[in-house]
Amino acid sequence: AGSLPLAGLAAGRAAAAAPPVSESAVSEEDPESPWKDLADLIDTGDSEGVAGFIDELDASDVARAIERLGREHREKVLAVLEPSAGAELLEQLVDAQGGELLEAAEPQVAAAVLQELDVADQADLIATLEPEDAKSILAEMPAEAAREAEFVGNYAPDTAGRMMDTEFLAFPQDSDAGRVVSDLRRRADEVEDDAVQYIYVVDREGRLTGVLRLRDLLLSPSWRVLETFMIRMPLALHVDQALDDILDVFDGHAFLAVPVVDGEGVLRGVVHRGDAQEALSERSEREHRRSQGLIHEELRSMRLLDRSRSRLAWLSVNILLNILAASIIASHQDTLSAVIALAVFLPIISDMSGCSGNQAVAVSMRELALGITKPTDILYVWRKEVVVGVLNGSVLGAIVAVVAWLWKGNPWLGLVVGAALALNTVIAVSVGGTVPLILKRFGRDPALASGPILTTVTDMCGFFLVLSMASTLMRHLA
Amino acid sequence: AGSLPLAGLAAGRAAAAAPPVSESAVSEEDPESPWKDLADLIDTGDSEGVAGFIDELDASDVARAIERLGREHREKVLAVLEPSAGAELLEQLVDAQGGELLEAAEPQVAAAVLQELDVADQADLIATLEPEDAKSILAEMPAEAAREAEFVGNYAPDTAGRMMDTEFLAFPQDSDAGRVVSDLRRRADEVEDDAVQYIYVVDREGRLTGVLRLRDLLLSPSWRVLETFMIRMPLALHVDQALDDILDVFDGHAFLAVPVVDGEGVLRGVVHRGDAQEALSERSEREHRRSQGLIHEELRSMRLLDRSRSRLAWLSVNILLNILAASIIASHQDTLSAVIALAVFLPIISDMSGCSGNQAVAVSMRELALGITKPTDILYVWRKEVVVGVLNGSVLGAIVAVVAWLWKGNPWLGLVVGAALALNTVIAVSVGGTVPLILKRFGRDPALASGPILTTVTDMCGFFLVLSMASTLMRHLA
Repeated sequence: AGSLPLAGLAAGRAAAAAPPVSESAVSEEDPESPWKDLADLIDTGDSEGVAGFIDELDASDVARAIERLGREHREKVLAVLEPSAGAELLEQLVDAQGGELLEAAEPQVAAAVLQELDVADQADLIATLEPEDAKSILAEMPAEAAREAEFVGNYAPDTAGRMMDTEFLAFPQDSDAGRVVSDLRRRADEVEDDAVQYIYVVDREGRLTGVLRLRDLLLSPSWRVLETFMIRMPLALHVDQALDDILDVFDGHAFLAVPVVDGEGVLRGVVHRGDAQEALSERSEREHRRSQGLIHEELRSMRLLDRSRSRLAWLSVNILLNILAASIIASHQDTLSAVIALAVFLPIISDMSGCSGNQAVAVSMRELALGITKPTDILYVWRKEVVVGVLNGSVLGAIVAVVAWLWKGNPWLGLVVGAALALNTVIAVSVGGTVPLILKRFGRDPALASGPILTTVTDMCGFFLVLSMASTLMRHLA
Repeated sequence: AGSLPLAGLAAGRAAAAAPPVSESAVSEEDPESPWKDLADLIDTGDSEGVAGFIDELDASDVARAIERLGREHREKVLAVLEPSAGAELLEQLVDAQGGELLEAAEPQVAAAVLQELDVADQADLIATLEPEDAKSILAEMPAEAAREAEFVGNYAPDTAGRMMDTEFLAFPQDSDAGRVVSDLRRRADEVEDDAVQYIYVVDREGRLTGVLRLRDLLLSPSWRVLETFMIRMPLALHVDQALDDILDVFDGHAFLAVPVVDGEGVLRGVVHRGDAQEALSERSEREHRRSQGLIHEELRSMRLLDRSRSRLAWLSVNILLNILAASIIASHQDTLSAVIALAVFLPIISDMSGCSGNQAVAVSMRELALGITKPTDILYVWRKEVVVGVLNGSVLGAIVAVVAWLWKGNPWLGLVVGAALALNTVIAVSVGGTVPLILKRFGRDPALASGPILTTVTDMCGFFLVLSMASTLMRHLA
């Protein structure tokens, strides 16, 4: 299947202006509610119709159509399609959405579709399922295939073992070029397009000993033994190596794919450059999501209770931290009732400090991701943040001070709220810049915890600064 | 250069446990302050020493060493290195950091290094420079090269024209397989490894008419004319096509690279799968950064005033919005001084509503990025958010209500703050879910503006709800 993938296929809105490019019928339309047509096709049980409908749409329109299907139709999507067409559909969707379709389908149907995917994709999709659903789907797969999927699923996320493609071309080192070419010719149709960038060479135990590039093979006489023109001791990844190592390899070299070996040096698979980039992009998406208080990936098509519970998990911790911070205000009620104007400025100081601190968090997260900052660089980061905090705190403090002074005609009120905001900005950027490093150093997830820690600390400090300074200067304020 | 990139190279910490893999001397160390050694090497002007030092480190350690160099050393890095080694260094760094090195160097040095990069990288780096710096560097490049870099730089960011590789292999359609193979053999050393996945076929005007896969070429007799076995009408991108279209193409097909044509159908370049993935990952990074209030990419090695100014640009808008929201409190001072306990709950309601709303913003941003949600789906998104808001608002409102009741022994206080938080949670998720869609619909950047709009609206509504409900129920509260 798919031996001539370039031929005559049209890609959505691709190249409308370019003469040599074929165009598809849907290229210019922006389908308004594609899920209605899709639901109709599902109702008629028209397998080819559904497959054709999905083929014609852009990947994002397919995702949108699936998202908007009602539960009764969503249950039937995979059942209506041929397993191979179902697999192609899942490849277009993000894992969370693909997992939803698998959960909605009958286990036999889900198992048949899964088997059409490569094992890395199987493992990723299975990881999104509820454990019971995963179990009943795996039970419907042939024992061997289920075992392999579970085996790959056991590699930690974002390791070479988890993201490798287990389809690759490998030949014994004592073969000759002619045998490789005739073997390639024989298997031309079954070999995936992206599996033949490099041809690997192994010894009798399956250990990786060399690599051939296709063009070197092209230029070698057929009697040459692979050993004599292969590139020896090729760079390889270990199955347990993590994403950052993998990205370093692709950053440092122009390779399209890197072989993956196990502890014995046996060739197990291949990581493609695109897979590593995709894993990186998913990791940053995950961090972003977590920094906004979404512990799990949420799509609005998911079950209401799951969506609510996942959001509440983070909110309920946050509200306790908020109540803790507000207890500072509660302990200064006398000051507050004497100078009620202060109550107007408390939320401003809380919010602005949070903003300044979040900017520092974002810079630290970015620098950690790039490796520019390490968890031990706390002092350096702190020094770099303090100077920005002093500058920005002065500007913001001055703005608030002037507003307070003009509003109440009392320069002392301006002094209190302005100085408190200026000082608290310095605290906020110090905390925001360093907390992600500290969390990372202790093996915690900085994306998830930095925000709540930051706002709790800056709220408490901010409230305390305003109210204690006000109580000291009370005779000028009241 | 680089015709045998796989041979004998070691990749940082790669594959420590795998026998067939070569190891480098630095593989196990975690260099504590590499920038000191680097600074020493720069001081001695030891070109090979600096290049070797950079080669030995992981890409992230190199980035860290460069970040921590003082200004006087940073100015000299590129001058000390051979231009080709300087270019390899820039390829390892993110554009913002590479741009810093170019700005710090003399224009002649920067120009010599830039010329070693491919034109897409040149355009990306030049885009990060101050206009005057870019001008003086371009002036030092040969007129032809400068024109090409400017030409590519003129394509909008994230279009096929901007990210395409302008090095590719193309042959006239009336050539035969033998000529292609002998030509490949002759040029084997100059052709980049990743340029030879597909060989393109063009007519006399340079228009793309077909594509050859290397393995089809391998299996064809030398007398066959390309036209007779090429894949006709290959899928192609137009130079102006945007990232989402490009990703759709790679999502829908297993291609490693897609050709790019201009309005006349002339082949202009090739977009690789990895480049598209990288552009996606940079776009989500940019959106994340903007959602946290960083308009420009900041690294802590940048100039203090630039860092401060960029952060203040967003903070100063925010403080005005904060003052606007706080004016609601100012207009209810009487209520507040009668029931000073309310002042304790105002920051809680403001912060918690902001959190709930930000979760909805994050889901919408994710669904917009995936194409699952379109800017016109406002009603659908709103319906899906309201139900979550009612559930979560009830839980959070109940928590706050109980706390308030227990604290002051007054159930009416609990009712006011609890009901206000519950209602405001519904408002917050409604605003948070829909505002990104509305901003996108009107061509604004949802990543930048959603947060400030959300918090301003939810603060105003939250403060108003608490204080107006309190003034209505004043006789039970005071």
